[in-house]
Amino acid sequence: MTLREAQPGGAPSTALHTDRYELTMLDAALRDGTAHRRCVFELFGRRLPGGRRFGVVAGTGRLMSLLRDFRFGDDELRFLRDERVVDAETLRFLEGYRFSGTVTGYREGELYFPGSPVLTVEGTFAEAVILETLALSVLNHDSAVATAAARMSIAAGDRPLAEMGSRRAGEQSAVAAARAAYIAGFSATSNLEAGRTWGIPTMGTAAHAWTLLHETEEDAFRAQIATLGTGTTLLIDTYDIAAGVETAVRVGGTSLGGVRIDSGDLPTVAAAVRAQLDSLGATSTRITVTSDLDEHAIAALAASPVDAYGVGTQLVTGSGTPTAGMVYKLVARQDSAGAWVGVAKSSEDKGSRGGRKAAFRTLESGTATSELIAVSDGFEPVDSPAAHPGARALHVRLAERGDIDPAAEGHAGVEAARAHHRLVRGELPVHALGLSRSEPAIPTVYVEAAG
Amino acid sequence: MTLREAQPGGAPSTALHTDRYELTMLDAALRDGTAHRRCVFELFGRRLPGGRRFGVVAGTGRLMSLLRDFRFGDDELRFLRDERVVDAETLRFLEGYRFSGTVTGYREGELYFPGSPVLTVEGTFAEAVILETLALSVLNHDSAVATAAARMSIAAGDRPLAEMGSRRAGEQSAVAAARAAYIAGFSATSNLEAGRTWGIPTMGTAAHAWTLLHETEEDAFRAQIATLGTGTTLLIDTYDIAAGVETAVRVGGTSLGGVRIDSGDLPTVAAAVRAQLDSLGATSTRITVTSDLDEHAIAALAASPVDAYGVGTQLVTGSGTPTAGMVYKLVARQDSAGAWVGVAKSSEDKGSRGGRKAAFRTLESGTATSELIAVSDGFEPVDSPAAHPGARALHVRLAERGDIDPAAEGHAGVEAARAHHRLVRGELPVHALGLSRSEPAIPTVYVEAAG
Repeated sequence: MTLREAQPGGAPSTALHTDRYELTMLDAALRDGTAHRRCVFELFGRRLPGGRRFGVVAGTGRLMSLLRDFRFGDDELRFLRDERVVDAETLRFLEGYRFSGTVTGYREGELYFPGSPVLTVEGTFAEAVILETLALSVLNHDSAVATAAARMSIAAGDRPLAEMGSRRAGEQSAVAAARAAYIAGFSATSNLEAGRTWGIPTMGTAAHAWTLLHETEEDAFRAQIATLGTGTTLLIDTYDIAAGVETAVRVGGTSLGGVRIDSGDLPTVAAAVRAQLDSLGATSTRITVTSDLDEHAIAALAASPVDAYGVGTQLVTGSGTPTAGMVYKLVARQDSAGAWVGVAKSSEDKGSRGGRKAAFRTLESGTATSELIAVSDGFEPVDSPAAHPGARALHVRLAERGDIDPAAEGHAGVEAARAHHRLVRGELPVHALGLSRSEPAIPTVYVEAAG
Repeated sequence: MTLREAQPGGAPSTALHTDRYELTMLDAALRDGTAHRRCVFELFGRRLPGGRRFGVVAGTGRLMSLLRDFRFGDDELRFLRDERVVDAETLRFLEGYRFSGTVTGYREGELYFPGSPVLTVEGTFAEAVILETLALSVLNHDSAVATAAARMSIAAGDRPLAEMGSRRAGEQSAVAAARAAYIAGFSATSNLEAGRTWGIPTMGTAAHAWTLLHETEEDAFRAQIATLGTGTTLLIDTYDIAAGVETAVRVGGTSLGGVRIDSGDLPTVAAAVRAQLDSLGATSTRITVTSDLDEHAIAALAASPVDAYGVGTQLVTGSGTPTAGMVYKLVARQDSAGAWVGVAKSSEDKGSRGGRKAAFRTLESGTATSELIAVSDGFEPVDSPAAHPGARALHVRLAERGDIDPAAEGHAGVEAARAHHRLVRGELPVHALGLSRSEPAIPTVYVEAAG
C-alpha cells in the first residue's frame, strides 16, 4: 500500500494547514521524550471581540471532516524533508500519523462566552499540538460569521435573510461562510458550491448586467419572465427606480413575485416602491433589499415595507469582527512521573486558566443565567451533569480514541447545528438581543470540579 | 471520454464557486438569444475602502489557475439538474463550457486606484457572466490582504516581516493570505501549505505550549536548542520575561539567535529585553515581536530595538478592510446588429462608467502622477501605449482566446509579482506612504480614447 492510498477517497491532505512551529516542537519533543506525554489542549476565546453579547460556535462539522484528511502522504513528507522542517525520525512519525485521541466540544450552533471551552483535544503532545492551526482556522472563521449572522437574524425577525457575500470572501471561505450563516438563521445562499457541499437552499435571479445586456429594461424583464415565470424577482434599479417598477408591473402583471432594490437610501426607496406597487395593484409583490446591509441597517428597516434581505459583505466579514480570535492552549499534561498537572502561561495581558474543564449552561425558567465552567487541576474527574442539576452539559464527544463521530458532518450535521442554534438562541435573556457593543449577556463562572 | 476525464489532472472543479443568478441569467439569455452577444466585463473598485492611499492587486495568478479548472463535470451538472437551477439546453451548454475569451489585466503586484480596470474579460455574455463570483472572490480577498501587507511593509522599513495569521483566517484563505503578503513585501510565512503550494519561505520555532509541556522553562529551552541549535529563537514570555531572558542566555549563550516577545506593552518590553540582553553580553541576539501588530503598532516600534515582526490577525483580515470591495460590471456589448455600445447602470450611489478601457500610469521623474484611463465607447480602438509617451501601460494579456498565459501562475508567478510590486511601490509619491486615512495618492483621470 502506498502512502497515497492511505488517504481514503483521495481527498487532498489537510496536514500542511499547519504552522511550521508545530512541527518544530514535535521534532524537539520526539528527541527529548516529551512527545508522548498525554496532554489536554483547549480551544477558547478570552473575550467576545467587537462587543458581542454572545458568540455562536460554527465550523465543528467541517473541522471533523478535515481531521479525517489530516494525513502526511508522499507529497507532504517530501516537502518537509526538502525544506528541512523536521528530521528523519519525525518524518517516520508523521508518515504513520493518525490522530488517536479524544475530542470533546460544544455542539455546532451552540452559544459561547468568554472562557467557554469550545473544543478540548486530549492525546499525546505529538498528536494534539499539530492540530492547532487547522482547528483555529476553521472555528475562528466560521464562528465569526455565524455570530454576525445570528445578530442579523435577530434584527430581521421573521423576515427571511439570504447570504450573498461570496464575492467579498476568499472562494473557499465563501462556502464556509454560507454554511455558518445558514446554521445561525439565514434561509438561503447565492453560492452554488454551498448548495452542493452542504445542502443549503440556493437562490438568485439576475444582476444589473442582465438589464444592460438588453436594448431596454423592458426587453430584459420580458426575457427573464419568459424563462423564470412571473413569480420571479426583477432587479429594478439599473436606470430609474420608478420607471423600473412601472415596467416591471406592466410586463409581469400584478402577480409579479418580487422586485429587488440594490441602491439608494433603502427606507425611503422601499416606502416609495411599496406605495407604487400598491397603486399599480401589485399588492402581493414582495420587496427584497440587498445594498450594503449589516445588522444595524436591517434593524433600521424594521418598520419599512421590506419582505426579505440579501446580505453580502458585512456577513462574510463578520460585520466588523472577521475572526472570533479564539486560541488553542495546553491546559493540562502528564509530568515525567505520569501525574496530571494543570498548566497555564502567566502573561499579564494574555494569561490563561490551566486545568481540564467541563462546561454547563445554567438556566432559570428556560432562560440562560450563566456559563458554568468546572475546572479540574488534575485530569479526572471532571464534573458530570449530575453535579449541576438543571444545567445543560455543553460538551459532546466528537471523536473517541481517534474514531470520529460522523454526527456533526455532512448535510445532516448542518441541519442539526441549525436546529440546535434555534433552540439555544431561544434561551438567551432579552438583553442579549441588543446590537450595540456591550458585555457578554451572561457571566462566566468558574468552580472547582466537584468530582 | 467521460466528463470527469475532461478535467485535466483531476483538479476539483471550481465551476460552482458561482452565484446562482449567473446561471439563471445564462439560462434566460440562451433562450432569448442574447447569450452569444460579445461583451466586455470589467473588474474594478469604485473607491479604496478604509481610507487607503493605494491598493495592491493580488490574486491574479491564483485566478488564472482556478479558471483552468472552471469546468462543469458530471457532479456539477447533476447538482444543477437536481436543483432545477437551469434547463436541459443550458446543461448541454455548460457540459461543453470552455472559456474561449480574452482576459487582460493589471500585473499581479501592481498598484491600483479608484476606477482602475484591474481585470477586463471579453467574450460572449454566456462565457463571461459566469466568472463574476470566482474572479471577485479571489481578487477581493487577496488584494485586501496585499494592500494591508504593503502598508505594514512600509511601516517596517528594512526590518523583516513574517506572516503568522493562518489561525485567524479560513484554512484556505490563510494560504492565499500568506501568498498575498509575500507579494506585498513580507519575507516569510508560518503556513506550511503556502510553502508547498507557492514556494514561500516558511519559519517558526515554538509556542507557549512548548514551555508548558516541560517541568521548567529551562528544560524547554535546553530541549529546543538541542534540536535547533543556538541560532534558534526562544519564546521568553510564558512566565516572567526578565527571568526568561536570563534563562535563555544562560542556556543558549551569548550567541543565542533570538528571543520572541508575544505579550505586554511592546515598546517598553522590547527596550527592557534589549538592555538585559546587552548587559548579559548577548548583543547580537535578535528580538522578534509578535503581539497583535498592525501597521500602526509597527510604525510605533520604529525607534524600539526590534529586529523582526511577526504579524497575524490584522494582516489576514486586511487591517480593518477585509475585502477590497471590487465589482464586476458589464461595460460594453454588441447590440442586435453587432455594433458595440458602452453600457452602465445609473444608480446614484453605485453608478459605473461604460465603455472599454485602457489604463496607464503617468510618471514624472520616476514618480507616479496619475492613473490615466482611456475610455472607448465602442470596442476598438483603445489607446495603445504610443498614445501616451512616458506613461506605463498597465494592462497585460492574461488569456487570449481561452488560452491562458502561464506566466502569472505557480511559484514563478509569485516571484514575478513580488518583484513587480517592489518596483512600482518605488514609484509612489512620498505622501502615499502615510498610514492615516486619506485620499488616493494620485488622481484617476479619464480621457476619451485617442485611437
